Amino acid sequence: MPPPSAVEVTAESDTSALTALSPLSLKGVSKRRAATGRLIAGVAAEANVESFKGATQHLHKPKAKTWDHHFSAESASRKGNSLKQAAKYLKTPGLISLGGGLPSSEYFPFDEVDIKVPQIGHFSPAETHQNGAIVKAGKHDLAEGKSIYDISTAFNYGQGSGSAQLLRWITEHTEIIHNPPYRDWFCTMTVGSTSALDMALRLFTQRGDFIVTEEYTFATAVETAAPMGVGCIGVAMDEQGLLATSLDSILSSWDPSAHNGARKPFILYTVPTGQNPTGATQSLQRRKDIYRVCQKHDVYIFEDEPYYFLQMQPYTGSNAPDAPPPASHEEFLSSLVPSLLSMDVDGRVMRMDSFSKVVAPGSRVGWITASEQVVQRYMKHADVSTQGPSGMSQLILFKLLDEHWGHAGYLDWLVHIRLEYTRRRDVILAACEEFLPREVVSWKPPMAGMFHWLKIDYTKHPAYPRLSIPEIEESIFLKSIDHGALVMRGSWFYAETTAAHNTMFFRATYAAAPFDKIREAIRRFGEAVRESFGMTDGMVE
Amino acid sequence: MPPPSAVEVTAESDTSALTALSPLSLKGVSKRRAATGRLIAGVAAEANVESFKGATQHLHKPKAKTWDHHFSAESASRKGNSLKQAAKYLKTPGLISLGGGLPSSEYFPFDEVDIKVPQIGHFSPAETHQNGAIVKAGKHDLAEGKSIYDISTAFNYGQGSGSAQLLRWITEHTEIIHNPPYRDWFCTMTVGSTSALDMALRLFTQRGDFIVTEEYTFATAVETAAPMGVGCIGVAMDEQGLLATSLDSILSSWDPSAHNGARKPFILYTVPTGQNPTGATQSLQRRKDIYRVCQKHDVYIFEDEPYYFLQMQPYTGSNAPDAPPPASHEEFLSSLVPSLLSMDVDGRVMRMDSFSKVVAPGSRVGWITASEQVVQRYMKHADVSTQGPSGMSQLILFKLLDEHWGHAGYLDWLVHIRLEYTRRRDVILAACEEFLPREVVSWKPPMAGMFHWLKIDYTKHPAYPRLSIPEIEESIFLKSIDHGALVMRGSWFYAETTAAHNTMFFRATYAAAPFDKIREAIRRFGEAVRESFGMTDGMVE
Repeated sequence: MPPPSAVEVTAESDTSALTALSPLSLKGVSKRRAATGRLIAGVAAEANVESFKGATQHLHKPKAKTWDHHFSAESASRKGNSLKQAAKYLKTPGLISLGGGLPSSEYFPFDEVDIKVPQIGHFSPAETHQNGAIVKAGKHDLAEGKSIYDISTAFNYGQGSGSAQLLRWITEHTEIIHNPPYRDWFCTMTVGSTSALDMALRLFTQRGDFIVTEEYTFATAVETAAPMGVGCIGVAMDEQGLLATSLDSILSSWDPSAHNGARKPFILYTVPTGQNPTGATQSLQRRKDIYRVCQKHDVYIFEDEPYYFLQMQPYTGSNAPDAPPPASHEEFLSSLVPSLLSMDVDGRVMRMDSFSKVVAPGSRVGWITASEQVVQRYMKHADVSTQGPSGMSQLILFKLLDEHWGHAGYLDWLVHIRLEYTRRRDVILAACEEFLPREVVSWKPPMAGMFHWLKIDYTKHPAYPRLSIPEIEESIFLKSIDHGALVMRGSWFYAETTAAHNTMFFRATYAAAPFDKIREAIRRFGEAVRESFGMTDGMVE
Repeated sequence: MPPPSAVEVTAESDTSALTALSPLSLKGVSKRRAATGRLIAGVAAEANVESFKGATQHLHKPKAKTWDHHFSAESASRKGNSLKQAAKYLKTPGLISLGGGLPSSEYFPFDEVDIKVPQIGHFSPAETHQNGAIVKAGKHDLAEGKSIYDISTAFNYGQGSGSAQLLRWITEHTEIIHNPPYRDWFCTMTVGSTSALDMALRLFTQRGDFIVTEEYTFATAVETAAPMGVGCIGVAMDEQGLLATSLDSILSSWDPSAHNGARKPFILYTVPTGQNPTGATQSLQRRKDIYRVCQKHDVYIFEDEPYYFLQMQPYTGSNAPDAPPPASHEEFLSSLVPSLLSMDVDGRVMRMDSFSKVVAPGSRVGWITASEQVVQRYMKHADVSTQGPSGMSQLILFKLLDEHWGHAGYLDWLVHIRLEYTRRRDVILAACEEFLPREVVSWKPPMAGMFHWLKIDYTKHPAYPRLSIPEIEESIFLKSIDHGALVMRGSWFYAETTAAHNTMFFRATYAAAPFDKIREAIRRFGEAVRESFGMTDGMVE
């Protein structure tokens, strides 16, 4: 597949219904960089995020609401790092600092890092192996004028926000994709979205609180909240994910006495795109409805979006020709469902982004976007806990994303990933159509993410209702293992882990296995289901 | 300086008074590796730490005490990650997994990472730049049999413990250096000791608790604890750091009613070696005394040791010849003050180690060593918050420390760092002797770490007692800025930030600035002090 042509996205050329949400131009970012001059940021320099945003483009926007009434005692009592009081003097001309306890880079046993990465438009592992570009980071590139980032800077201590060098790229990327509709939005890096959720929960909640989330949800999110004494309330879902009506109903009818006296939930944790485990993607209208309900009930939103750029091509069926790939960056960006952040007029969204699904999980670099007030509190916590992400990771990502690919090249890469996941999704759907008994297994083609969500009609199981739903689910799971295929039990993903439920699902991922293995695993799962349901035509062994 | 000869440290050759604490042999670790065979650990594999330890060498030791009575509600309620229930099936022969949502490494845009690092014994930046070794990590080195660790493994998701590959090296290193005297000690990686302290506090304490620490302490530690509602009680110090008698007295006379009803502290946070900010290093006897007091009062110890390997050569004075460098690994290891971990018969120490001061802070890789019970709870928290450290960092460290240098080469590097810091310390001491007015400034030569701690006799200040101690401290600080030298105010490091104090110190670091700048900054500080105290012979401008 050819890479999309390098058509620039400009506000002028955007004629869709989404004008208010349209992305800024790549050209605009380049111009701004040229106008602001070379970024100078040494060891542990504080990032001037405002300068990365092009403030004039946001001045007409309203400022975010304040959230003091929702902050936890822990967060509200956070003070700045006292040693930073000394930082203001560092700009004194001629000053020699014997202040900060930073080691000298002469004791970092690294002289150069070279990384072989894909050339733009030649993204396959084979092409990269044979003809990849070598990006180089030297120890003193900054002092020698070869780069704005180097080993002596990246490998030393940094700020909780992450380095100015990579944070600029992240802020620009966020503006290009989401352009939040309020003025004082900021980005700060995280050591991954799991940590970001942990820190966000400590920022907003206290022991005894409940948060609301999809009825099937990322199990780690439930397990992050539970030890803090924070429970989860599941919101009903359909194939577009969380139902705004169910959310409204839960909040409108909240009864503290039915929840150990807990106050009404004011945090929604949601994965709007390619949700884990259901694969559901909220439509634009659904997102608007959810946002409106959150406004009505003064709910703050954690938008967890690791799968945002795993939005795939439309599913055309197993025998129809593929939909043509995006012909331009503009077409690609227009194809993405707008984020909650992009419609966040109140500043009530903390969006969590991640490189894990589109670059590499091992970077342990992600970022949040939220109002300045929230980001400042997050950074204060980071300064005394996680600190910023690995400088080694940051340097590698900076070299690839900023110096080598740039924003346009990264969009090309994202289109490549989109088409690859589309192929994977189509493989699993074709296998399901071929091998699964439609009488008892049903599904919707996922539009985004890594997960295919298979609904089981347990009422047709011969042991129902003699055996409970969890017992039947377990027997199918173990039967599938016997047949040599591992899929995840839907019950592992309940937001309300102890409540009774009357649905049964299995989650299968198409993200990692080779195509023939995906096909074979689904064939085996089909055998297991048929055998479990006593369907003789499935007794193929 | 020549590197130390490659004499092996063996239990047999150890004839010092510290036999019980003696390090295991490097040779022993090599033999064990050879006996256990090639380490096989793929993507997100769980590490078998027991196999890294040489279990037979620990079987005769007692097991650690249990700490259930000290765990917080948050920690006590932690359950394992529910999705890991599926992991036990992954060993089923022939199984195809569509279970875990791990991306395929074909979508990691990295083919190879090459890092230029020092050859053993040629550690200077100039030597490394000209003749450094290039260590290479390919994408599929593991599958291709070229290495036990590679990009496709390190850059994917991992365990909260960190990778088996690097954790083995860390566990062996810990055994060589500390050899904890109980059986069930374990290591797990951290994303840095600041995060480890945050997580350890959440593991043990609850709102309203107090912990005890040095009266002058790492300000970030106080600021990590305070928002959790955990206060700090300062223990009196001398030039050997925390006084065991003061610790005993505080704990013996604890009065809850004087501390808002708080229970008696059961956590000691201490930096035994090159303490920040005082530079004090606890002697072996002091450590034994502190440990005994902790046993008496059932106190658990957080041993924070970033500066452990910044223990320097004896200070011989500005005109005497330098002490000869360690002639062997054995001599080097014998020169180190034994850690609290090395005398921890109860398993009451959680030691925090860091690569920040001896390799590079930007790695954001550290580790803790504690009893299995404590490490398991720490890892459970990591699984739902920080996760393991950056895989990019882990791969770079593994290539350097395990594949390139090995344990012996790393000890050579640590001797190199020791001698470098000795030179730096000697430069600042010589400058202090030359430029500071001994009538009002006094100090002890630091034996370890990055910090020189200068005591000011404020009673001789012309404005005392008209001005308060903090006012005089501030005036000297600002005067020093005026003269072009930044040193840190001692009051920024009080454990008890709001209490009144009757000492005055300034902290100067010799870690980073070039030698001539260190000298010039101390000269300027001396001018400022003289001017501030109205000492005319100092009016040199």
